[in-house]
Amino acid sequence: MGRPIALLTDFGLRDHYVGVMKGAILSVNPDARIVDLTHEIDSQDIASAYFLLQNSYPYFPKRTIFVAVVDPGVGTERAVLGVETAKYLFLAPDNGLLGFLGRDEKIRRIVRMENAKYFRPSVSTTFHGRDVFAPVAAHLSRGVPLARMGPTIRAMQRIPVPTATSEAGGMTGSVVSIDRFGNLITNIPGDRILPGGTVRVGKAVIRDLAQTYGNRKPGQVLAYIGSSGALEIAVNGGHAARRLGVRVGGSVRVAR
Amino acid sequence: MGRPIALLTDFGLRDHYVGVMKGAILSVNPDARIVDLTHEIDSQDIASAYFLLQNSYPYFPKRTIFVAVVDPGVGTERAVLGVETAKYLFLAPDNGLLGFLGRDEKIRRIVRMENAKYFRPSVSTTFHGRDVFAPVAAHLSRGVPLARMGPTIRAMQRIPVPTATSEAGGMTGSVVSIDRFGNLITNIPGDRILPGGTVRVGKAVIRDLAQTYGNRKPGQVLAYIGSSGALEIAVNGGHAARRLGVRVGGSVRVAR
Amino acid sequence: MGRPIALLTDFGLRDHYVGVMKGAILSVNPDARIVDLTHEIDSQDIASAYFLLQNSYPYFPKRTIFVAVVDPGVGTERAVLGVETAKYLFLAPDNGLLGFLGRDEKIRRIVRMENAKYFRPSVSTTFHGRDVFAPVAAHLSRGVPLARMGPTIRAMQRIPVPTATSEAGGMTGSVVSIDRFGNLITNIPGDRILPGGTVRVGKAVIRDLAQTYGNRKPGQVLAYIGSSGALEIAVNGGHAARRLGVRVGGSVRVAR
Repeated sequence: MGRPIALLTDFGLRDHYVGVMKGAILSVNPDARIVDLTHEIDSQDIASAYFLLQNSYPYFPKRTIFVAVVDPGVGTERAVLGVETAKYLFLAPDNGLLGFLGRDEKIRRIVRMENAKYFRPSVSTTFHGRDVFAPVAAHLSRGVPLARMGPTIRAMQRIPVPTATSEAGGMTGSVVSIDRFGNLITNIPGDRILPGGTVRVGKAVIRDLAQTYGNRKPGQVLAYIGSSGALEIAVNGGHAARRLGVRVGGSVRVAR
Repeated sequence: MGRPIALLTDFGLRDHYVGVMKGAILSVNPDARIVDLTHEIDSQDIASAYFLLQNSYPYFPKRTIFVAVVDPGVGTERAVLGVETAKYLFLAPDNGLLGFLGRDEKIRRIVRMENAKYFRPSVSTTFHGRDVFAPVAAHLSRGVPLARMGPTIRAMQRIPVPTATSEAGGMTGSVVSIDRFGNLITNIPGDRILPGGTVRVGKAVIRDLAQTYGNRKPGQVLAYIGSSGALEIAVNGGHAARRLGVRVGGSVRVAR
Repeated sequence: MGRPIALLTDFGLRDHYVGVMKGAILSVNPDARIVDLTHEIDSQDIASAYFLLQNSYPYFPKRTIFVAVVDPGVGTERAVLGVETAKYLFLAPDNGLLGFLGRDEKIRRIVRMENAKYFRPSVSTTFHGRDVFAPVAAHLSRGVPLARMGPTIRAMQRIPVPTATSEAGGMTGSVVSIDRFGNLITNIPGDRILPGGTVRVGKAVIRDLAQTYGNRKPGQVLAYIGSSGALEIAVNGGHAARRLGVRVGGSVRVAR
């Protein structure tokens, strides 16, 4: 069956784009194992794709190929990258989407995917998901070496990513994502919150960390170390983002 | 490939939670066959998950493992259950979600999943889908016996489920679900409606059962025996819930 | 594993219908490879299903079985068709959904699926996706010949499909689909737009074709040959349908 292929796009599930990408993969590797990470990234929202992929890839089996297509520059001179780490392989446009690599995970090699032999015979200017990413991922899943895909290059684009900053008596960060439940995921490492400290976000001041939602009364706001290791804020049985009037980018302060 | 794994959650498809669960499954069983039942259960709506799973499992192949994660109590003392029947295996939090078992399908064994050897090495307090359910399901799919997962227990939580009641001249029940088409699914057994009888729901009085939508004129309200065997109400080519102003829980009366 | 099965329905992903179809497929062919094209076709919108399938199937591997269930006439006398071409097999209700076959792809055989031996033992009147399409597709994927399913027939239903018309100095067509990004997909062949010509749609007059989105400034309207070969209109970084106030069916004119 070869290496698993995990897909992340902003194509949505209404149109045929995701299905067609899978068809193009199966046309090259009929036994491909394809897993959907999500296809509901907001249109062209590279930062959300970055965050989501960063928090997903470590839970996949070794040798997984991640294909991330959020690609406002499709068809222009922007490169398509293949980035190899000790455990994984990542394909994405060179637009900053993979910027967590090198920080969280050591990079072994970056290849500019240029070898049209592994593309579909005819490449459109607007749907490289189908014509470039899908067939290349399928060939890689069958064992074609990354180095065959094009020249090795030295660097890739980076995007500014909001990071938390330490300050006298605490730390200031921000909300980097809001999930379906309305939980606020921050960029403050969970181990920076000390017993007796406070967390301030929107209208709320929260004292002490909870272990989990059910440790607070229904409707109560709580702070806790989330499943990705970062500080999160939720409302037990409720929707924290709506309740606190907070959006992505909103400020979060932690004081000792 | 092992036993198929069918997933039901309230995680939605925007976030990475479902994709990460699948990654965690494949990390244990690279050949797992994973099927999505739905991930669009309303947040923490145990009753909807109950209804949906009850109407789905009989159509799956023998030996399927159903993993149902609608889990407001995640990380608290609530147990994670493995429930074995003659044909299937069900994993879910002990919160009533599996309450149809024992009624519709004889229970062979209930096990409290406690053996951390089959969990991810580090278990978060808020994402047991990834850290407990996924790896346990994957090990079970590879043939690890349920009894290895923890102690056998005698009972599980039940939730009140609205049932239809017989009365002089008929039966009163309620709408238990409304599907994408706006069709009203009730808890009244389809075989309780007799020729010449009437069905009353919201503003409508319907005489006689139809075989299917196309047996009525466009826009006409019809009652029929649905695909799960229960009485349903629809509008041919329309949306019955909006047309009749009926919600889940709305009363339905059948008279001879 | 047998032939791949690609699914297209208007069932949505909230209900259990799609999951149950997959369960019914796996009950017949436990090794089936199932791919989702989309399940978010608007309720009973046969024309959208037609368009989406027409633009998807050529990218799938040879021998794929396409199962398209948008079926307002379910349970009535309408036939279920199996249509064989040189490369593919298509199952759909006889309601015009497959009308592009014969035009784009030569038909070898049309069979009316009548052999109840390949249906589920009990067939409901309202869910043939589960009781007819799924088991028939699964048997076909295992190699049962199409001819076993029922009698060969000579013709199928057609629906009127809007086509572009040539006129003095240009061509007039319409918007046949709007995708998630708000891009307008037309029925005007991309090769009909000549250098120096104009495209008129809604409030916009566009001169010359662009290669891709990024070739225009952010916010600018552009016309280009889309990934299916037809003329499309987009806004770089924006939503053309909202910006131009255009809906499906809206007129598009091309002048030399």
